[in-house]
Amino acid sequence: MEYGRRLQGMDIMTLIREEIRRQGGYHAGVVSCRIKLDANESPFTLSPSLKDALFEEMKKVHLNRYPDPGSPLIRERFARHYGVKQDMLMVGNGSDELIHILCTALSDKSAAVMAPVPTFVMYRIIAMNAGRVVIETPLEATTFDLDLNATLDQIERRNPALVFISYPNSPTGNCFDETKIEAIIAKSSGIVVVDEAYGYFSGKTLLPLLSKYDNLMILKTLSKVGLAAMRLGFLIGRASFVRELDKVRLPYNINALSQVAAGFYMDHLTFFLNQAAEVVKRRNELFEALRKIGGIHPCPTDANFIFLRCDLDADRIHEDLIARGVLIKNLNGPGVLKNCMRVTVGSREENGEFLQALRSVIEGIRS
Amino acid sequence: MEYGRRLQGMDIMTLIREEIRRQGGYHAGVVSCRIKLDANESPFTLSPSLKDALFEEMKKVHLNRYPDPGSPLIRERFARHYGVKQDMLMVGNGSDELIHILCTALSDKSAAVMAPVPTFVMYRIIAMNAGRVVIETPLEATTFDLDLNATLDQIERRNPALVFISYPNSPTGNCFDETKIEAIIAKSSGIVVVDEAYGYFSGKTLLPLLSKYDNLMILKTLSKVGLAAMRLGFLIGRASFVRELDKVRLPYNINALSQVAAGFYMDHLTFFLNQAAEVVKRRNELFEALRKIGGIHPCPTDANFIFLRCDLDADRIHEDLIARGVLIKNLNGPGVLKNCMRVTVGSREENGEFLQALRSVIEGIRS
Repeated sequence: MEYGRRLQGMDIMTLIREEIRRQGGYHAGVVSCRIKLDANESPFTLSPSLKDALFEEMKKVHLNRYPDPGSPLIRERFARHYGVKQDMLMVGNGSDELIHILCTALSDKSAAVMAPVPTFVMYRIIAMNAGRVVIETPLEATTFDLDLNATLDQIERRNPALVFISYPNSPTGNCFDETKIEAIIAKSSGIVVVDEAYGYFSGKTLLPLLSKYDNLMILKTLSKVGLAAMRLGFLIGRASFVRELDKVRLPYNINALSQVAAGFYMDHLTFFLNQAAEVVKRRNELFEALRKIGGIHPCPTDANFIFLRCDLDADRIHEDLIARGVLIKNLNGPGVLKNCMRVTVGSREENGEFLQALRSVIEGIRS
Repeated sequence: MEYGRRLQGMDIMTLIREEIRRQGGYHAGVVSCRIKLDANESPFTLSPSLKDALFEEMKKVHLNRYPDPGSPLIRERFARHYGVKQDMLMVGNGSDELIHILCTALSDKSAAVMAPVPTFVMYRIIAMNAGRVVIETPLEATTFDLDLNATLDQIERRNPALVFISYPNSPTGNCFDETKIEAIIAKSSGIVVVDEAYGYFSGKTLLPLLSKYDNLMILKTLSKVGLAAMRLGFLIGRASFVRELDKVRLPYNINALSQVAAGFYMDHLTFFLNQAAEVVKRRNELFEALRKIGGIHPCPTDANFIFLRCDLDADRIHEDLIARGVLIKNLNGPGVLKNCMRVTVGSREENGEFLQALRSVIEGIRS
């Protein structure tokens, strides 16, 4: 038999959606530096004794068995932690997976997904990959707050099925005006997803609004408070809606060791919250120190990172910092991100080294 | 301000796609038994010294840092293992995620996904959840081989963008005739995905056909050979196509400890392959023993499980086995699955206990 014939003239690439082929994909950082302040991770590791305790727990897992599907124990503990009912919460392989599930479950291929810009880029990338239309509404240029009139106008005209609001917002660091967010929720007939990934550092949450609005959903994650490696995100919302989304979730999405880590987080909550409180202290010191550096304009922040506007070439600063072993996030691009960067708050020592390197880099550029 | 008004009369449930709301979701087993032979897992755990070694490796991970995006080291090692180039392989959070990515990337919402039935149910569920049309072609009723004419006819008429073929097939356990699979690959202008999840137990692979057909992709997993808890699946195919699929993959889909486990698997390959060889021995013994039980008709198998046709009520057998502490998979349903069950090959002791329980259950039903 001869099967080879079909091959000529066919192009399997046409099987892939156009919007996927056009985009470049998300390239997570691959530069490796001694001091890593680019990804909004916690600078703190576990203490040796806690690490021992965690891995002793993990060793009890039978690795030959599938993980508990739907992570019921984790759902129960985190639901109680956030003060909601268990069937209002689902667990994702990071918030990324939950964003993807939200986009996938929408009723119509052409359903629009809206997000302000600049914000977390994965809202746009995931929505596009799921075949959705993405509507971006610029933030107010100086305050980075939501442009309420423009946003409500877009909601009126485009009726987005999903609106993503990062609270506090990455990369700008600020919490949007809560009354504006509430106005958007009230106006939307779609779901408004408030992503509180950085809520540990703002002390603010819109969880109380869940009882008032059935179209509000909240995202949480352990990635910013010490467990980024384990990929644990949480979606909280109306139970009937979560139940439908849960059908799209892959049954064994949370591996067994991540489930152990999530339980461990709850067992040692105070330890993790103290680390977050420590980050807030270091952030405030770092902010004050940055304000004193000429040519660098840090924006007020509620997160574990600081958005920086620079009078100098951000590309150059970024590169020169890498040469000194310090990695921060270069946001330099057209429009409002011109010569902007973002630095994650590190430990006292890391922040000190970053500041020293930054001062010396700027001196080098100016001389 | 008063925002409450919109709530009356809107129904957020209409935002969810109809086909998701209609389906019941995948319910992974929740029954807990002393002897677990329902999920095609390996019956064997790590030796204590290997477990210590693995967790010592894992302890080196900084849990506060994101995992390596795209798992480059794992890609490299497994590509070498499977004898392909690194850019031909991507790693998924279990094969489930890779199936989902394949379905998501398709060019058209109406693109059809085809699979024989009965087969692994997640092909259908994931395709439906991604908004795809699912075409099911019945296997030949007695041999459970592919019905080639009917399949080629459907391909001609419906032109599916994706065809899933489980090789060996779950739940029937047989490897389809390779020349039939090749005819399907040759005829399809879509992608044919050959899922070799159980290839460790058949000793067969279609990997060599990759050089002949650009529309062939192969799935592999570590879930059946001792690492189900870690969720590690692999997709292998044409590099240009994998590159596009990789854009749909979430950047941090493989958590850091699963990456360690994958490396550990390669470090101790012989250990894991010996366990798989042991399963094959136990399978052959179990098959012979089952043939001697009146009313039970085991089908020849190339996998780590055995498909059983029963002359008696399978629901009753399944329940009575649970009462005796043995869990197998009840497949009983209309048509070819009438009074069918599937039992995973366990350790010598587990198989012995299962056989004893089965004999006693059948005796009880008959008396």
